Amino acid sequence: MRLFLIPDIYQGDPSLTLVENDYHYLIRVLRYKPGHEFLGRDSNGNVFDLKITEITEDSCTLQVKESPGEYLKLPEIILYQCVCKGKKMDQIIRQATESGVSKIIPVVSDFSVSRIDTEKHGKLDRWNKIVREAIQQSGSLVNTVIENPVTIDNLLEINEPISAEGELGLFFHQEVLDSGSLHGYLSADPCRVFLVVGPEGGLSSRETEVLFNKKFKSIYLKTNILRAETAALYGIGAVQTILLESENWIIK
Amino acid sequence: MRLFLIPDIYQGDPSLTLVENDYHYLIRVLRYKPGHEFLGRDSNGNVFDLKITEITEDSCTLQVKESPGEYLKLPEIILYQCVCKGKKMDQIIRQATESGVSKIIPVVSDFSVSRIDTEKHGKLDRWNKIVREAIQQSGSLVNTVIENPVTIDNLLEINEPISAEGELGLFFHQEVLDSGSLHGYLSADPCRVFLVVGPEGGLSSRETEVLFNKKFKSIYLKTNILRAETAALYGIGAVQTILLESENWIIK
Repeated sequence: MRLFLIPDIYQGDPSLTLVENDYHYLIRVLRYKPGHEFLGRDSNGNVFDLKITEITEDSCTLQVKESPGEYLKLPEIILYQCVCKGKKMDQIIRQATESGVSKIIPVVSDFSVSRIDTEKHGKLDRWNKIVREAIQQSGSLVNTVIENPVTIDNLLEINEPISAEGELGLFFHQEVLDSGSLHGYLSADPCRVFLVVGPEGGLSSRETEVLFNKKFKSIYLKTNILRAETAALYGIGAVQTILLESENWIIK
Repeated sequence: MRLFLIPDIYQGDPSLTLVENDYHYLIRVLRYKPGHEFLGRDSNGNVFDLKITEITEDSCTLQVKESPGEYLKLPEIILYQCVCKGKKMDQIIRQATESGVSKIIPVVSDFSVSRIDTEKHGKLDRWNKIVREAIQQSGSLVNTVIENPVTIDNLLEINEPISAEGELGLFFHQEVLDSGSLHGYLSADPCRVFLVVGPEGGLSSRETEVLFNKKFKSIYLKTNILRAETAALYGIGAVQTILLESENWIIK
């Protein structure tokens, strides 16, 4: 489902004429033709059925109808991402947002390469900007938010505890700490998954202890050793797909 | 696990002397000292225990022993990646290699933003370099190779046909073309998966027809619309994890 972000100029009329960037995107990049139907969303989250009715040299006109359809409900994934250096962290945040993660919480961990001082460097502002742009570009229906950094020790103190029914906490680790599989843990069909992804140097053994005490489960991905920015998206792809296909499989 | 790619000059001797790039990488970049032990792999996939025995101003000598360890066997995934612009393609190639994809075949597709002329621009050389670096950095035990670009029309003509037992062809598509799930298709436990990932503008309807004729299955990922460089790794994470956990689930 491709979803077009309807610009704020739209006032509820049954038709909308687009120029410049929006025109270029729909007609030149996506190569939509007259008659092409697709979905749009306005900044209030309302979803519309759109149809191209006319294309000129520098504009296109859409028919706009409120959409009666029911839309994608993604499983709630909360990403605790240990802070990585500059561009790597940006990439993780962008791709996690694109994938429809509900919340991203940066974690300052024992082996985080980078210390952060959000007040001083305005990092949180920058990350917020990346999240906003990623939502626009991907047409995500999830209103991803990014929160203030925490440490592994206080990661649940400022959030809901993991004890709640239907919640599952997982952390990816480079060593086999227990024998559980993703399918095993996700077969309980949790309504909310907390996912901890370590930094380049991995989590310290102190941190894995803290996570076990908080009832997080350790997941050993049997693939190659992945860099932090690869592990995050790889893991989100695996967890989200297994959850989204929960109708298709059962545990052996 | 860091894994060193043993150069092709190695003939099976119990010691190996390295100069120039390899010397620079181990001694100057990684700062390995005499006595440092690490893993290496030759181009045939054999794994060796390596140990630095001597370092001079412009060379280093390694002790080389066949490694008795048992190593990860990843499912064979062959990525047909429609060519994306510059850095996006680089990122896809790097992350696919890191994840242990066996083969990457660039595809010049109808909606590929970028036309390529590999002879002229030396793109294949550059991609090969990225693959090599990614293998070294991630310590991948898979000897990922990148092949010459093809089009959707000839993608199997220059490779093995998909008709073979145990082979599965999948392509990610932004529209629902059939109702199969990844778990459904992967439950046959294929020994080789061909994965087609479209470019920014998606695959053309002509191309999806061609793929159906070649017995590829269409997969609609129920998540947000992902950009090409996100879709590739997200999909590899999902496919590889579902395959690696095939002992843990069965189809409903």
